[in-house]
Amino acid sequence: MKIKNMKYLFEPKTVAIIGASKEKGSIGNVILENYAKYKFKGKVFPINPKSKSIMGLKTYKSVLDVKEDIDLAVVVVPAKFVESVLTECYEKKVKAMVMITSGFDEIGNHVLADKIKKLINQNPEIPVVGPNCIGVMDVKTGSDTLFLPRDRIDRPKKGEVAFISQSGAVGSILLDWIAYKDFGISKFVSYGNACGCDESDLLEFFAKDHETKVIVSYLEGAVDGKKFFKTAKKVAKQKPIILIKGGMSEHGSKAVSSHTGSLSGNAEIYKAVVKQAGLVYAKTVQEMFDYARILAKEPPMKGKNVQIITDGGGFGVLATDALEDLNLNLAQMQKTHINKIKKSVPDYAVIKNPMDLVGDATDERYDVAIKHTLEDNNVDAILLIVLPQLPTLTPHIVDTITNHTKKKKKPIAVVFSGGHYAEKYRKILEKNGVTTFDYPSNAAKALKALYEFHN
Amino acid sequence: MKIKNMKYLFEPKTVAIIGASKEKGSIGNVILENYAKYKFKGKVFPINPKSKSIMGLKTYKSVLDVKEDIDLAVVVVPAKFVESVLTECYEKKVKAMVMITSGFDEIGNHVLADKIKKLINQNPEIPVVGPNCIGVMDVKTGSDTLFLPRDRIDRPKKGEVAFISQSGAVGSILLDWIAYKDFGISKFVSYGNACGCDESDLLEFFAKDHETKVIVSYLEGAVDGKKFFKTAKKVAKQKPIILIKGGMSEHGSKAVSSHTGSLSGNAEIYKAVVKQAGLVYAKTVQEMFDYARILAKEPPMKGKNVQIITDGGGFGVLATDALEDLNLNLAQMQKTHINKIKKSVPDYAVIKNPMDLVGDATDERYDVAIKHTLEDNNVDAILLIVLPQLPTLTPHIVDTITNHTKKKKKPIAVVFSGGHYAEKYRKILEKNGVTTFDYPSNAAKALKALYEFHN
Repeated sequence: MKIKNMKYLFEPKTVAIIGASKEKGSIGNVILENYAKYKFKGKVFPINPKSKSIMGLKTYKSVLDVKEDIDLAVVVVPAKFVESVLTECYEKKVKAMVMITSGFDEIGNHVLADKIKKLINQNPEIPVVGPNCIGVMDVKTGSDTLFLPRDRIDRPKKGEVAFISQSGAVGSILLDWIAYKDFGISKFVSYGNACGCDESDLLEFFAKDHETKVIVSYLEGAVDGKKFFKTAKKVAKQKPIILIKGGMSEHGSKAVSSHTGSLSGNAEIYKAVVKQAGLVYAKTVQEMFDYARILAKEPPMKGKNVQIITDGGGFGVLATDALEDLNLNLAQMQKTHINKIKKSVPDYAVIKNPMDLVGDATDERYDVAIKHTLEDNNVDAILLIVLPQLPTLTPHIVDTITNHTKKKKKPIAVVFSGGHYAEKYRKILEKNGVTTFDYPSNAAKALKALYEFHN
Repeated sequence: MKIKNMKYLFEPKTVAIIGASKEKGSIGNVILENYAKYKFKGKVFPINPKSKSIMGLKTYKSVLDVKEDIDLAVVVVPAKFVESVLTECYEKKVKAMVMITSGFDEIGNHVLADKIKKLINQNPEIPVVGPNCIGVMDVKTGSDTLFLPRDRIDRPKKGEVAFISQSGAVGSILLDWIAYKDFGISKFVSYGNACGCDESDLLEFFAKDHETKVIVSYLEGAVDGKKFFKTAKKVAKQKPIILIKGGMSEHGSKAVSSHTGSLSGNAEIYKAVVKQAGLVYAKTVQEMFDYARILAKEPPMKGKNVQIITDGGGFGVLATDALEDLNLNLAQMQKTHINKIKKSVPDYAVIKNPMDLVGDATDERYDVAIKHTLEDNNVDAILLIVLPQLPTLTPHIVDTITNHTKKKKKPIAVVFSGGHYAEKYRKILEKNGVTTFDYPSNAAKALKALYEFHN
């Protein structure tokens, strides 16, 4: 089944909320509010046979009563009504559907699930996300079916990472965390029971999405393993796919079948798939975030040679240990560049690898060090550690760093460690497109993922 | 050399700041301010031959001019004056010294360094921290020689972890981060060149400190390897010592000699020391924080059997994978307790391991689940995952959790993941003494460290 027109899930101009509700906090109320009261600029049509208007919007008994074309139908009616709603949507020729409703295979209601699947299969040109999911979010247009309370779940800003989650809860918590850290995403999909569109269809779509540079997939068990392998292998040649796989252990695999009801598959098989398809495997949520950001923002890393620059010797030592542990090399810079740096910094600075600009480092000292390091052909990437708390650094260090990273000559992973003060400037760096990390070990791991993807 | 009376470093009643300065932002100014304007309740004597008063305090030409006894002398004069200052301090019979001043062995000034060492060795009963360090901090009394700007470095609240750092920068950045996360410490020492007191002396002191339950040591190279091994082995029988060791790799070891000038020693030797002395080894800064908190706050973990409780199936799966990866067991609860829980929760909750209370879990559902799980003899610890963003949970979930954890029946590692909303309640949990984590993998690793320490 080849799904077309998936873009209407994310960029609809007209949206029908089927099961829109007046009841504050209910799913049908929250989703209507998402489209009617926030960023979304298109037209919204609440569908509810019992109301005349909700949130000041005229309410319709059925999508068939709406005169305009419908790009996206969001279905939140109880499971028993879904079959007739689907039939009406197909009659209306809606261009895409998100089916939030639960109560199908996941609770053993296979008869009803099969009826739904049959209908969906008969209309392969219409993408259906769900059922039993939290649906989609598009940062640019504000198409957003997330029904968790807005005061509890923040929405991320625009970025270049598309995020596909088999689990709605994992997906939404991670969105919340992404927003909190001021990272960005392009699009998000929680696809639940995957009756009409699975992880492979979404990979295929995001491969062509110009707003997406990196795809992240939280997967418990692929709906169709062979299709997933084939698609992932193809897409990974175009864009990095980061896989975080639940159920890699024996007991984790059993837990998956209690959770999403999918077969998580043997860990060895997935490890082989990762390797043969060229995926980037993230073992933890933290790794997933770090890999996604560095792959989306940094230019290719051509070799293994990393130069560490720091103003704290101890952090330089920890970074060295982390790089060596990951089998990355400490770059050996050329004498000409070393000498150029030495000319501009005090004698007591250590211009080796790690390069220690020491505790009284200034913005200018960093500027010189980064400039000449980037020019050195023996250096493939910089692991840049800045302790902004040290009193000789000013807030302008943010501009100094940004000026170098924005040219994207070589990957630069920036460790900006510490509390309130560091966090404030780390967030500005993130806004400026710089890839930041909390600790040297995280930056080293991310550089390793970047190197492996490009080599 | 046996050092006595180290308590005056942390709990002085009278402090002389030798080299106190009027110049805003200078080291002698910031340290005087620490004692004169913040938490410290004792008497402060600025020593500066050129001033009559600083910050409204009468200033003395020498410690010898002060009539009162001096518990702690903080030395910030230039290196060339240190010898005479030391002589005066010994004549004055000050009870402890922190020597911030740099410019000795670390810049090759061995002649001067040797003179200082000789003087210190002649007075073994007086503890001297430093030189070339940022010194000490005691949360309870406010004895605090940290000279980094307060608007850039936050101070942590009171906790039960003592923190010994060979690197001043690493130490202060981590203090800042600890404060930011609302974690606490008891005491902090950066001991620099360790001319008068090294990591082993400090271990010995903290072993007996009633306010310290766990000792963390950031070490690049022990001043005296044999002494360190012997002391660590003895102390680790009384309290957990968490070691984070810079220079574990070949190049990291070389970087250490550029940094602190110490011999970092062979990684294999340190690994053997960790094992034979019963230390807890933290590979990353994140691990160090997580291990310190769980060891300080949770009761002993008697066996390997962990019960996962969650309201998000996906996070339960990831936790299962993490536990199995670390060779911890999934507990198999007794039928009686399983049935008690089943009676109080809806049919669709999955009362296995992981126990999935599902997305509409209430505070009460968690209460029942935790209660009966704690009563089960097959369970040695709980990995408790709460997604507080889900709308059926109220802020009272914090009290529900706290009520169970405060009894300290069994270790409970709480994963409270997400953005602003989660962070707000996570911080309240931390204030309540609960051990919280950002992700399942961090909680699993910390439980493993707890298990290994107690078995």
